[in-house]
Amino acid sequence: MVKLKHFVSVEELSNEEILGLLSRAGEFINGAKPNIPDKQIFVSNLFFENSTRTHQSFMVAQRKLGLDMLPFDTSHSSVTKGETLYDTVLTLDAIGVNVCVIRHPEDRYYESLIHADTINCAIVNGGDGSGQHPSQCLLDLLTIQQEFGSFEGLKVAIVGDISHSRVARSNAQMLKRLGAQVFFSGPKEWFDDSFSEYGEHKTIDELLDIVDVMMLLRVQHERHGEDTTFSKEEYHNQYGLTVERAGKLKANAIIMHPAPVNRDVELADQLVEAPQARIVKQMTNGVYARMAILEAVLQGE
Amino acid sequence: MVKLKHFVSVEELSNEEILGLLSRAGEFINGAKPNIPDKQIFVSNLFFENSTRTHQSFMVAQRKLGLDMLPFDTSHSSVTKGETLYDTVLTLDAIGVNVCVIRHPEDRYYESLIHADTINCAIVNGGDGSGQHPSQCLLDLLTIQQEFGSFEGLKVAIVGDISHSRVARSNAQMLKRLGAQVFFSGPKEWFDDSFSEYGEHKTIDELLDIVDVMMLLRVQHERHGEDTTFSKEEYHNQYGLTVERAGKLKANAIIMHPAPVNRDVELADQLVEAPQARIVKQMTNGVYARMAILEAVLQGE
Amino acid sequence: MVKLKHFVSVEELSNEEILGLLSRAGEFINGAKPNIPDKQIFVSNLFFENSTRTHQSFMVAQRKLGLDMLPFDTSHSSVTKGETLYDTVLTLDAIGVNVCVIRHPEDRYYESLIHADTINCAIVNGGDGSGQHPSQCLLDLLTIQQEFGSFEGLKVAIVGDISHSRVARSNAQMLKRLGAQVFFSGPKEWFDDSFSEYGEHKTIDELLDIVDVMMLLRVQHERHGEDTTFSKEEYHNQYGLTVERAGKLKANAIIMHPAPVNRDVELADQLVEAPQARIVKQMTNGVYARMAILEAVLQGE
Repeated sequence: MVKLKHFVSVEELSNEEILGLLSRAGEFINGAKPNIPDKQIFVSNLFFENSTRTHQSFMVAQRKLGLDMLPFDTSHSSVTKGETLYDTVLTLDAIGVNVCVIRHPEDRYYESLIHADTINCAIVNGGDGSGQHPSQCLLDLLTIQQEFGSFEGLKVAIVGDISHSRVARSNAQMLKRLGAQVFFSGPKEWFDDSFSEYGEHKTIDELLDIVDVMMLLRVQHERHGEDTTFSKEEYHNQYGLTVERAGKLKANAIIMHPAPVNRDVELADQLVEAPQARIVKQMTNGVYARMAILEAVLQGE
Repeated sequence: MVKLKHFVSVEELSNEEILGLLSRAGEFINGAKPNIPDKQIFVSNLFFENSTRTHQSFMVAQRKLGLDMLPFDTSHSSVTKGETLYDTVLTLDAIGVNVCVIRHPEDRYYESLIHADTINCAIVNGGDGSGQHPSQCLLDLLTIQQEFGSFEGLKVAIVGDISHSRVARSNAQMLKRLGAQVFFSGPKEWFDDSFSEYGEHKTIDELLDIVDVMMLLRVQHERHGEDTTFSKEEYHNQYGLTVERAGKLKANAIIMHPAPVNRDVELADQLVEAPQARIVKQMTNGVYARMAILEAVLQGE
Repeated sequence: MVKLKHFVSVEELSNEEILGLLSRAGEFINGAKPNIPDKQIFVSNLFFENSTRTHQSFMVAQRKLGLDMLPFDTSHSSVTKGETLYDTVLTLDAIGVNVCVIRHPEDRYYESLIHADTINCAIVNGGDGSGQHPSQCLLDLLTIQQEFGSFEGLKVAIVGDISHSRVARSNAQMLKRLGAQVFFSGPKEWFDDSFSEYGEHKTIDELLDIVDVMMLLRVQHERHGEDTTFSKEEYHNQYGLTVERAGKLKANAIIMHPAPVNRDVELADQLVEAPQARIVKQMTNGVYARMAILEAVLQGE
């Protein structure tokens, strides 16, 4: 069984740990009982950025594990009086919280927390800055593994807003490490040379009949300012998965998206729930992946 | 036992179903144990409009039934990133939510949800647009039935902001269907001819010594703009239940109001908790009515 | 065992009740089981001002006691439609809430609630106006008692924003009543002659080698407007506990602060978690003090 002190970044995990978590998530899907300390365990979810999927999914995972979840409304906390994240977590730790799940706009916000002698509770990263979203990476890997059994030799396209995405880098790095071949697509100005070590950039049309997984990323309208020079229609036609393009995918290829989807932008509205789409499945898998993560940090206490 | 797939509108229920739910609510008041599937059941309360009574009352009902209630803060969800209600409910359904209780400003918002093949969770309407508020209707009926035993031949006045009210139409329609005689009162410009099929419009003074139930509706200051031409005092004197008017009610008549009350507008401050008022009782009954509703949709899964 | 109808102000408690609650909190620290009615008990936390420590700490205490805590978001309740606190609590009482924990900006907001015949639920004051913060007072007393065994003859300095503090007056009064000697320090313009009955005002330098407890209060930037004439650095140098000053404290003296701390204002950053600081300990004790308070009002029902 995987034991972790914190869960802040998939890059720091070994392949054995990653595969161990995936395997445990699969056991939870099949009804396995959690293996956690027999005591009242408190969890706090600190979401400093808006979220539905990740926040709700962590809550369901926590309740399925029998944890005691404390609501924390960041907009009505002492953070509004200028309290730092460190002091907030110090407080929660002092009053008995065992695990803090945190989403925060600052890159690697967790550094000051996991290196503090004064803080004992486990930190689970629910997304930081433009950097990481490790539980999303795990559920994406779980969804691919469910479909194809292994990662070896799989061809995966990651399409869209690569440089602003929290999942592109982790997914690319992990998929490559686990034996898959990664491609990138989307506007060239949203690509970044630091990704070249993981895979090549191609147009979406060049990738359609090659890939096993077409993973689309959300266009983050809220992160783009004046620099966006294309309309939604232009984006869809030039970079998105149109119905016509979807028809050219390999017969057993799957479509993924971390959601929320901008329908008719990243992919055509009617493809979201199409037979080859795994977008709803990804959300369902997220609960089980997060159960495995939470169990691992409770084992690692 | 009543089984429902969704609970979105009382109009769609048969008299038998309505009376069945009222009867079940009465059993809960007397301590009956809930009859629901023996598994972890997740409920999400999505309130896109502010509420105390309905929201808190549903939560108490859920906890009394032993359901696992997930907090959902609409102002910090992905709805703020433009996610639609459909996609939000699709997400909750995917992560395992069994029942969504929803209040939403759009009339009949639930149509796209209950007709979607992709969504399995039950929808319970906590109020939509200016249209419906079916759980309020049920608790109003429960309160009247408790008092008078049946609806046959009862005379009920519905007074105030008829056309903006979420309860006037449902209550009028149901009361008539169950055998009561309905009257309307209040400013004529807040009445609407489509209500004439349920009952006559009269002045409050004409109704005082006739009715068994004096049901006052909230003046929705937040829904009226510049069109309101009377002050609070004028409204109270002309259309409200003053202390003097209350003195002319029949000896066993009761006063009802869905609350929140504008004290000294719809009715005199001191009448809110007067012996003939059932306003606090309505709130208490709301919990049991909602237990019956939630049990019915869990039976109907 | 202490039984209380409400818990709104420590001033109204006898020494025996105060010491009884402290003793019970100590038992909870040592693992005592709560002694509360064997039924489903609902608690609502109504925080009309932002809070992390008090709010979260009450929630942990409630969960440790096995109470059923209902989330209440004051910013999305009917309070936004103009509903009064009285009508909100009347509603919660009607739907079955047994205890309301309330923080509210109005001084003695609770008067209208505890004297109403219509309201049965217990009121626990989580802080009112600039007046009271009785659960903080109790946890402060607990922390001092833990350290020194008794209050008799102890010398305690209360330093800082005396007149705006919710804890200065209650703590001074209780400490004096329990046999301690109290001193005040900080800017003279933040002192108020009504405090003179509890103790003398001195400079912090005069108090360093005298006191057993150096209790610093938060500079409430959000409560001061244009009247603050010193910068953070000036405050720290003139009135704060600098590292140099801390070196002159008695060997067994302790440093306290209700938090959130303005680091490098009231005290030097590195002192917050120093060996003689009890600031984290205060937060931990808060949970147990609040368990004792909640148990007492549930016993007093």
